[in-house]
Amino acid sequence: MLYLIGLGLGDVEDISVRGLRIARSAVRVYFEMYTSLLQGPDGGVPALEALLGRSVIPADRETLEEKASDILFGAGDGDVAVLVVGDPMAATTHSDLILRAREAGVPVKILHNASIISAVGCTGLQVYRFGAVVSICFWTESWRPRSFAQHVRENLRRGLHTLCLLDIRVKEPDMTALMRGRKEFEPPRFMTVAQAASQLLEIVSQPPTAEASDGESTPEGEPTRDVPDCFTPDTLCIGLARVGLPDEKILAAPLRDLIDVDMGGPLHSFIVCGGLHPLELEFVRQFALDLSKLPQAMK
Amino acid sequence: MLYLIGLGLGDVEDISVRGLRIARSAVRVYFEMYTSLLQGPDGGVPALEALLGRSVIPADRETLEEKASDILFGAGDGDVAVLVVGDPMAATTHSDLILRAREAGVPVKILHNASIISAVGCTGLQVYRFGAVVSICFWTESWRPRSFAQHVRENLRRGLHTLCLLDIRVKEPDMTALMRGRKEFEPPRFMTVAQAASQLLEIVSQPPTAEASDGESTPEGEPTRDVPDCFTPDTLCIGLARVGLPDEKILAAPLRDLIDVDMGGPLHSFIVCGGLHPLELEFVRQFALDLSKLPQAMK
Repeated sequence: MLYLIGLGLGDVEDISVRGLRIARSAVRVYFEMYTSLLQGPDGGVPALEALLGRSVIPADRETLEEKASDILFGAGDGDVAVLVVGDPMAATTHSDLILRAREAGVPVKILHNASIISAVGCTGLQVYRFGAVVSICFWTESWRPRSFAQHVRENLRRGLHTLCLLDIRVKEPDMTALMRGRKEFEPPRFMTVAQAASQLLEIVSQPPTAEASDGESTPEGEPTRDVPDCFTPDTLCIGLARVGLPDEKILAAPLRDLIDVDMGGPLHSFIVCGGLHPLELEFVRQFALDLSKLPQAMK
Repeated sequence: MLYLIGLGLGDVEDISVRGLRIARSAVRVYFEMYTSLLQGPDGGVPALEALLGRSVIPADRETLEEKASDILFGAGDGDVAVLVVGDPMAATTHSDLILRAREAGVPVKILHNASIISAVGCTGLQVYRFGAVVSICFWTESWRPRSFAQHVRENLRRGLHTLCLLDIRVKEPDMTALMRGRKEFEPPRFMTVAQAASQLLEIVSQPPTAEASDGESTPEGEPTRDVPDCFTPDTLCIGLARVGLPDEKILAAPLRDLIDVDMGGPLHSFIVCGGLHPLELEFVRQFALDLSKLPQAMK
């Protein structure tokens, strides 16, 4: 059996009782380390090994995508476990590995766990008032994608909140070293709330024509030139850091005020708020960076 | 400290190692039994008590909403735990209890866990291709709400999937008994995939004018009379039962073919599919009720 076991939000003890039992007795245990990470030194490996009482095999994207047959080796007779921070099927899917397992006749079981997708409820915002989730990636000088902002605007027009997942770069090849013939990796990078806010602020400060052109639909009677009005530097946003961990931090403020907050270590997420229900409002007030700067209705 | 501890998708061993440790040593443990349930007899109470090695206090909506001060009693000095199936802050929020705790000066910690909101990834559909979540409630002779179908249509127009949470009725007062002066409760009811499909089929078979009138926006140039075209008896839907449990069942078929499937015991959920990415498509094929009836592209 191939088990995909969710580890939850980052504390090693977030693993389920069932997941712990299976991982302890499996033939081999892989630990996926490129889409998220556990708290603690060395990406949480020592803490995880201490809890399991056994060693784990750290697995990056290459291992999981190109060495699927190594992972599946022997899984027809014994149990092989792949541990994934969050929910193994959320945010990033491991569909490909599952499809390969099924092709090889290896049965698969998924142990779900907490994911930021549902844990955003910790802000008091109601999960059914969220629209499509978007991802914000690191901009480079030549690559500055902003089409995700369309989805944010579409959500806002419907009064819906948007959860923005922030970029994670782990084991990125170091191009300078590569050109010198050495395979080295850049240090891991995790987008912060301040970085996300500043990319978003740049987007909302520009005319929206560029991204509106690639198929964005606008409600009848609302000309394209009015589109940016729903998403401005004053739009209420929420920055989240280390959700579910002891040092979780949540800050609510207009977009423009989040560009220089320091919310500490990874992982961070970001919410662009749509319309707020009174109970949501009461809850979000607790997280205000500066109560006097919240929209009038929230003070 | 007030702990809200998520129990995950319904297997008693889905509780986290940390959650188990806290619940075992807490002064009192409540078990919320009105928004979901654990597997096993008596709503999972005996199984839960066996795992924790202690008794739990079953809590219905009334206990949690009207007796918050009883729950919080002593929580300033010791630990009180409230166990909630799923994620304590997803699907239904327990915001009110948290706000009251904070007013009373009681610190609060949330232990997130798996929720159907992110576990839908088990279908192979990508979570960032879902739009707003909707709830479908039991229709009565006089109350047949269908405005949620607007959200499904809005999602479909953007190519997004819709997760539909299906109604749960636990501890509903028995009106006939109440009129005779006796406080009795109806047996628990859980909406099935077939019931949800048949309500949806009735909605898509009717002219959309009624629900279109309460503020539904239509993309420019698309007259209202064309609206129903995006959501029809042929729209691909997925029925889900007991996600994450050993007898999980997933079936994909056009809406019209799901009205008489029998997917067994609770809990059930429902997905209306938007556009499918090739990898999603490959995964969803595995769940086809009848491969020949899937849309042409999926065969």
